Amino acid sequence: MRVAVLGVGLIGGSIGRAARARIADSVVVGYDPDTETIARAVRVGAVNRAVASVAEACEGAELVVCAAPVSGLVELAREALAACGEDVVVTDVGSTKREIVEALAGDQRFIGGHPLAGVETAGVGNARDDLFEGARWYLTPTAGSSGVLYDRLQRTIAALGARPQAIDAEAHDRMMATVSHLPHVVANALVGEAHTGLGGGAERIPVEVGPSFRDTTRVAGSNPAIWGDIFASNGEAVADAIEALGARLREAAELIRSGDRKAVAAWHAAAAEERRGLLEPGRGEGPLRELRVVVANRPGTVAELALALGEAGVNIEDMALYPAPDMSSGAVSVWVSGAEQAQRAVGLIEGLGHSVTDLGDE
Amino acid sequence: MRVAVLGVGLIGGSIGRAARARIADSVVVGYDPDTETIARAVRVGAVNRAVASVAEACEGAELVVCAAPVSGLVELAREALAACGEDVVVTDVGSTKREIVEALAGDQRFIGGHPLAGVETAGVGNARDDLFEGARWYLTPTAGSSGVLYDRLQRTIAALGARPQAIDAEAHDRMMATVSHLPHVVANALVGEAHTGLGGGAERIPVEVGPSFRDTTRVAGSNPAIWGDIFASNGEAVADAIEALGARLREAAELIRSGDRKAVAAWHAAAAEERRGLLEPGRGEGPLRELRVVVANRPGTVAELALALGEAGVNIEDMALYPAPDMSSGAVSVWVSGAEQAQRAVGLIEGLGHSVTDLGDE
Repeated sequence: MRVAVLGVGLIGGSIGRAARARIADSVVVGYDPDTETIARAVRVGAVNRAVASVAEACEGAELVVCAAPVSGLVELAREALAACGEDVVVTDVGSTKREIVEALAGDQRFIGGHPLAGVETAGVGNARDDLFEGARWYLTPTAGSSGVLYDRLQRTIAALGARPQAIDAEAHDRMMATVSHLPHVVANALVGEAHTGLGGGAERIPVEVGPSFRDTTRVAGSNPAIWGDIFASNGEAVADAIEALGARLREAAELIRSGDRKAVAAWHAAAAEERRGLLEPGRGEGPLRELRVVVANRPGTVAELALALGEAGVNIEDMALYPAPDMSSGAVSVWVSGAEQAQRAVGLIEGLGHSVTDLGDE
Repeated sequence: MRVAVLGVGLIGGSIGRAARARIADSVVVGYDPDTETIARAVRVGAVNRAVASVAEACEGAELVVCAAPVSGLVELAREALAACGEDVVVTDVGSTKREIVEALAGDQRFIGGHPLAGVETAGVGNARDDLFEGARWYLTPTAGSSGVLYDRLQRTIAALGARPQAIDAEAHDRMMATVSHLPHVVANALVGEAHTGLGGGAERIPVEVGPSFRDTTRVAGSNPAIWGDIFASNGEAVADAIEALGARLREAAELIRSGDRKAVAAWHAAAAEERRGLLEPGRGEGPLRELRVVVANRPGTVAELALALGEAGVNIEDMALYPAPDMSSGAVSVWVSGAEQAQRAVGLIEGLGHSVTDLGDE
């Protein structure tokens, strides 16, 4: 398989190294606008071969990964799509997805991606072939995405060691806004409120007040340079999440003002339960089970399937497409982890109107 | 000194033990409606003598401490005030102050209090004479409070090992709401938002998202039974704090939506700075310095002084009143820690229109 990596920093470089180490017969061609960076990528073995342009990198590639900084990704992906033939999947690794997916929605070859890895360091010098081992890697297919190309992309990502999961681009940005960006905003606001409440810096919080304030505000103001960019790239979703939280806080204020101790205690207990559910390690996982789905061979079916399972929290560990010879219909096999997930997946797939068979353990 | 302790649980019992151990010639008389509890208080040495009624406990007392659960404090303090003569200071140890201070505002002998200690355990069996060692102990005098009685109260509290600090009752409740109660509400709301955002419990938060969500929500749903009561007793202030935070979050949403990276980064950096200021250990502390203040001998002057310094974060480590023989004016000495605090205190006191002299180190 020939993989083109456009932008060979930590993520692009690690994709190159992982592909070379883990995918048989892989050839990784790298391009980077920075000549020193690309030379270094060759030296550390992140790519088999360096080229001088996007077009050259795309020549003969089956999979193109755009791994530039977020602000340049749309333009880079457009350039790659223009240089590629029909049978090429183009993806990116940006941490926000709505903008790029909307911009390139007309092209069935583009499928957005976001690996949750590599936030601690940067640079191709830190690239590792195991950077994605076990890591969640979101993919954002749309109804217009090619099923065959989605299949190729998610298999490749699984081969790099990651756990691909389909998610709607907007849902992805909303989720990242809520679980990753919103806590920082909340911490900042809480600090601001306490700062004003305690005389604008004249007074300190007594240590005896306990750890609740310390814990809740620990991430306040961390790394202003990075967060300026993050908030900028996902600003709409973060602002929406802030407003949703605001509505929830208004409800909490009303509840507390009502003085209904039982209702307050119930609300409090529910939060503990929900937090456990959100942070607990996986339940009901087990050996992979294959589900064989018969589907009409039309665009969007695979994306629809992957999204329905992804949104319900059923992870597709592997997937294969078996088109019928006349291309009028086909079969899709999806592998999920354990009997419980398989049962849920069957219900979801049947709900979409497809016929599905649980073929059991591998 | 004769001290009456009404309610001998952990806090009342520890006040008794500390007074007996640390105040020469102290006699601690205890009352508790629960006969087993008061018998135990005698056995563990928390009181010198047990009596069978509030009135009996107040007989001859110079200081009366109401240490019952919050819900019964106003009634208990009223009963004590009815039983006491003019030269007795009555205080309480409830964790919220506005309600009781408002209810008893007509009586110059009542001064509310709140020691920040003893949250981890309960019961007179856990009472210790060093429970208050170094702990902040808020006092909430009003303009109507007797200066002489305030002086007696804060000296006694300092003698128990605590660090008394005057604060307006409403400001106290607001502060506790903001730095102690609000973080719990925020954590609950954030969990609720993530729970909804991730499919109502169908999905878990990827571990790769990092510690920001974990840290920020750590206190979510902790101990529902206790928090039902806390929110009930300080409900108004907590609801106000939630609404103030809501306004701040709306501003943050606007700022982030504006896409102004520089402004976002500045806001983020300010949060880091403010948090450091709120949680850092004391700066500029040093040997105690005595400030001698000449004041008109009228009600409210001492409270005004103590509040002005307290609100500015200048802690009064000790205080003494020297009334003039004709009672028309007097002097107050306040001791503060270090030259920097002394300098700030002098400015604040002069701002109130009093003449003040910095007498230097002890």
